[in-house]
Amino acid sequence: MQFAGSHILSVDQFERADIERVFEVADRMEPYAQRRRITRVLEGAILGNMFFEPSTRTRVSFGCAFNLLGGDVRETTGIESSSLSKGESLYDTARVISGYSDIIAMRHPAAGSVAEFAAASRVPVVNGGDGPNEHPTQALLDLYTIRKEVEHSGRSVDGLRIAMIGDLRHGRTVHSLSKLLACFRNVKLTCISPGELRMPGEILEFLRSAGHSVTETDNLEEAIGHVDIAYATRIQEERFSSPEEANRYRGRYRLNQSIYTRYCEPNTVIMHPLPRDSRAEANELDTDLNENPNLAIFRQTDNGVLVRMALFALVLDVVNLLAKHEVPVTWYTGKRFHD
Amino acid sequence: MQFAGSHILSVDQFERADIERVFEVADRMEPYAQRRRITRVLEGAILGNMFFEPSTRTRVSFGCAFNLLGGDVRETTGIESSSLSKGESLYDTARVISGYSDIIAMRHPAAGSVAEFAAASRVPVVNGGDGPNEHPTQALLDLYTIRKEVEHSGRSVDGLRIAMIGDLRHGRTVHSLSKLLACFRNVKLTCISPGELRMPGEILEFLRSAGHSVTETDNLEEAIGHVDIAYATRIQEERFSSPEEANRYRGRYRLNQSIYTRYCEPNTVIMHPLPRDSRAEANELDTDLNENPNLAIFRQTDNGVLVRMALFALVLDVVNLLAKHEVPVTWYTGKRFHD
Amino acid sequence: MQFAGSHILSVDQFERADIERVFEVADRMEPYAQRRRITRVLEGAILGNMFFEPSTRTRVSFGCAFNLLGGDVRETTGIESSSLSKGESLYDTARVISGYSDIIAMRHPAAGSVAEFAAASRVPVVNGGDGPNEHPTQALLDLYTIRKEVEHSGRSVDGLRIAMIGDLRHGRTVHSLSKLLACFRNVKLTCISPGELRMPGEILEFLRSAGHSVTETDNLEEAIGHVDIAYATRIQEERFSSPEEANRYRGRYRLNQSIYTRYCEPNTVIMHPLPRDSRAEANELDTDLNENPNLAIFRQTDNGVLVRMALFALVLDVVNLLAKHEVPVTWYTGKRFHD
Repeated sequence: MQFAGSHILSVDQFERADIERVFEVADRMEPYAQRRRITRVLEGAILGNMFFEPSTRTRVSFGCAFNLLGGDVRETTGIESSSLSKGESLYDTARVISGYSDIIAMRHPAAGSVAEFAAASRVPVVNGGDGPNEHPTQALLDLYTIRKEVEHSGRSVDGLRIAMIGDLRHGRTVHSLSKLLACFRNVKLTCISPGELRMPGEILEFLRSAGHSVTETDNLEEAIGHVDIAYATRIQEERFSSPEEANRYRGRYRLNQSIYTRYCEPNTVIMHPLPRDSRAEANELDTDLNENPNLAIFRQTDNGVLVRMALFALVLDVVNLLAKHEVPVTWYTGKRFHD
Repeated sequence: MQFAGSHILSVDQFERADIERVFEVADRMEPYAQRRRITRVLEGAILGNMFFEPSTRTRVSFGCAFNLLGGDVRETTGIESSSLSKGESLYDTARVISGYSDIIAMRHPAAGSVAEFAAASRVPVVNGGDGPNEHPTQALLDLYTIRKEVEHSGRSVDGLRIAMIGDLRHGRTVHSLSKLLACFRNVKLTCISPGELRMPGEILEFLRSAGHSVTETDNLEEAIGHVDIAYATRIQEERFSSPEEANRYRGRYRLNQSIYTRYCEPNTVIMHPLPRDSRAEANELDTDLNENPNLAIFRQTDNGVLVRMALFALVLDVVNLLAKHEVPVTWYTGKRFHD
Repeated sequence: MQFAGSHILSVDQFERADIERVFEVADRMEPYAQRRRITRVLEGAILGNMFFEPSTRTRVSFGCAFNLLGGDVRETTGIESSSLSKGESLYDTARVISGYSDIIAMRHPAAGSVAEFAAASRVPVVNGGDGPNEHPTQALLDLYTIRKEVEHSGRSVDGLRIAMIGDLRHGRTVHSLSKLLACFRNVKLTCISPGELRMPGEILEFLRSAGHSVTETDNLEEAIGHVDIAYATRIQEERFSSPEEANRYRGRYRLNQSIYTRYCEPNTVIMHPLPRDSRAEANELDTDLNENPNLAIFRQTDNGVLVRMALFALVLDVVNLLAKHEVPVTWYTGKRFHD
């Protein structure tokens, strides 16, 4: 894959070598994200951070990643303009907005909208989520996190044992992550979900035909025992066809510390795409896991900055110029960034 | 006109020499907007981009123009604050906000609001649109575009043949552009609109008394034949007094490629203030014109950045310092900016 | 108090020496805020300006203060994200967002929310207002303004005579300011309010036990005569238990020029936390005071930038590096900033 000048729209664009290139550059971003060094390599460049659907977390992550490379950010935080209600096409919006910036990060509620926008854009576009369709930077940061977490114990993505838990039918996160995993070798995926919310057959088939092992179950406790990664997602009650069906599964996919202690291997890493519903009645990760050192959910969001910096640096072709444009860190950065 | 430190509130401020000065500086901004060069001349300066009415396009254009000169942007994207609902006056808002920034770009739904704000401001204010009243940067970018488009064929604004099409009664864009055109010589304006939506008499009179030629018609095909510029605007159905009247004119001002081919001279330039309603039922420019090289609508928005950069540089008096504060372009800028 | 790396959450954190340290640094910020000098000491640092409740004035003030030190600003302008409606905890939000920035300024409608957020944050947090609870930067800028205003006539906060006027029961501004004043010596506070809206007893007791003098009255004219500072706040009709009670006091706390001329000492300084309701029927400062040179309300907001710059510089520990990172001022700054 040729990164310079390319759009980043879908995980389907990435082969194994591309993924590894992104991760190698992301590794090089760590000292900048941790404020041990400052680079101004993109001084004078402008990111158009076009969020036509609100998402504070992802929007700010893209913006900070660009600032950390020295660039400026202009943005929108929702469909604020009356332009779209006046029937403006994505083609027109793209032609106009791409005249203002050097690169665009875009989120939009409609599937396919970002690709349609990119086709008319005069600058590279990074997909920040197009509704139920794609969110490639999330999938990349998830896989990057997996790689970093397991390499502590000498393992790698090849041979990974991973459980995906919850609503595997509607979660674009687990679909995209599965596609990236398929680029590696000998992955053992366990899909844990209610029967109604199983992973789509074409994704299972895709993994199997690439030589990976996939099993399915609706029983969390039985299946969580022998995995490196437990990737939890949310189950929304309204996804079930009936209240009875929802009741049948209530609370059965809520991973907590006592289940973890009883069933998981000692170093099993817990992941989640966030946001997490922390209310007691939610079918999510329990907050009693917060002190568990294997809870990687906040390392995921930290890694998101690294991965987005890497993509910006690759697409704008400045990877080899980072060090040349360093300036000193002048301010107190505390213990947070340095340990 | 003395630009340094002045408010830019109305096209009425501009004489021909002022317009030409803005355009000359806008020309000098092109290499910066195209990322062939970077200047940081306004490093440390802050634009207060105060949009009390949403307008993604115009807001981002102002912000990018300021970033391209090296300055920072603080902004608001709507009447988010409860201050105005608590009865705060524009005087108070202006006194406070002007203490934060070096220059302010402001949009507000009420006619006259920006001038009222400017009277209390301690820094220069650029009008980004005050409801139905004024939007001087739009008029300047339109005229700048006209000048650039026609000079390719050796013509100039003096002697220009221009048709304005659509709702000429309510369109502040065409009113302001007419006033700027009146500063030049021997313009031939053709007003094409339904009878109910004719250009206001005082504007026609203003042009005629300045020695220009004005004709009016409600027939697009007959009048579009011998012009350098066809400037289309939108007709909203609700502007008509009755549905019958709206029906009578339905689709009669929608310029498309077949009308263009049949009636227009070969190099007639097509303009529109945008946004354009691209739905089939709209009374707007047809999307089948998108491949027509004389469609200048996206060059208009590109030129908007140049004109806004020029105004900022003139008002903040840094025109002669641009080159002194250049830094290298480090990143991939692709083919878009360089051809 | 150790500023470097600390959260700024409450006026209760500040002893007299801390307050004086903030003010001393704020004094040093004046040439930068007035654009006589530019410093880029925080180049590469990012402020997370997290406003989960709209407040244009305070948000832009924080953002400009950070820009004036050379840093970048990423922000949110309301509860735009669906994350909170999905039950995300402040703990999770803080863990995520604090991974993006070097320091956070935060406003949130719920009392205690900012402290809860700060407890989970990995970077310092400055409270920009947590509902009815605290707004420490407002209290500091108020006291800083008082100090500057009275020192013109050779006085100081020690021995200050101050009247607080209006709704003293619900105004967090006057509560916090009272606590800061208590750190000084021999303050004479006159509380002027309707009986139903008196200053809470514990605050009066706190002041008295620290050796200050406090008197209470519901009569503006009698009490306004011998004070250095008249600090007015708003009375909202709905705060009264009955319309009859509201009627009884209507207009009796609206300070205007004729009351000022008739009852006040010549140099009495008029303050207000803003926004001010400028409508005739409001129980606020009358706009006929706008030409009164002792009206300090806009000097208050100007001072807010200085105080916020000072807090950022102290918490990020760059006070001694300001001069080292200066760059020239290149643009027209007019007469506003230099007189």
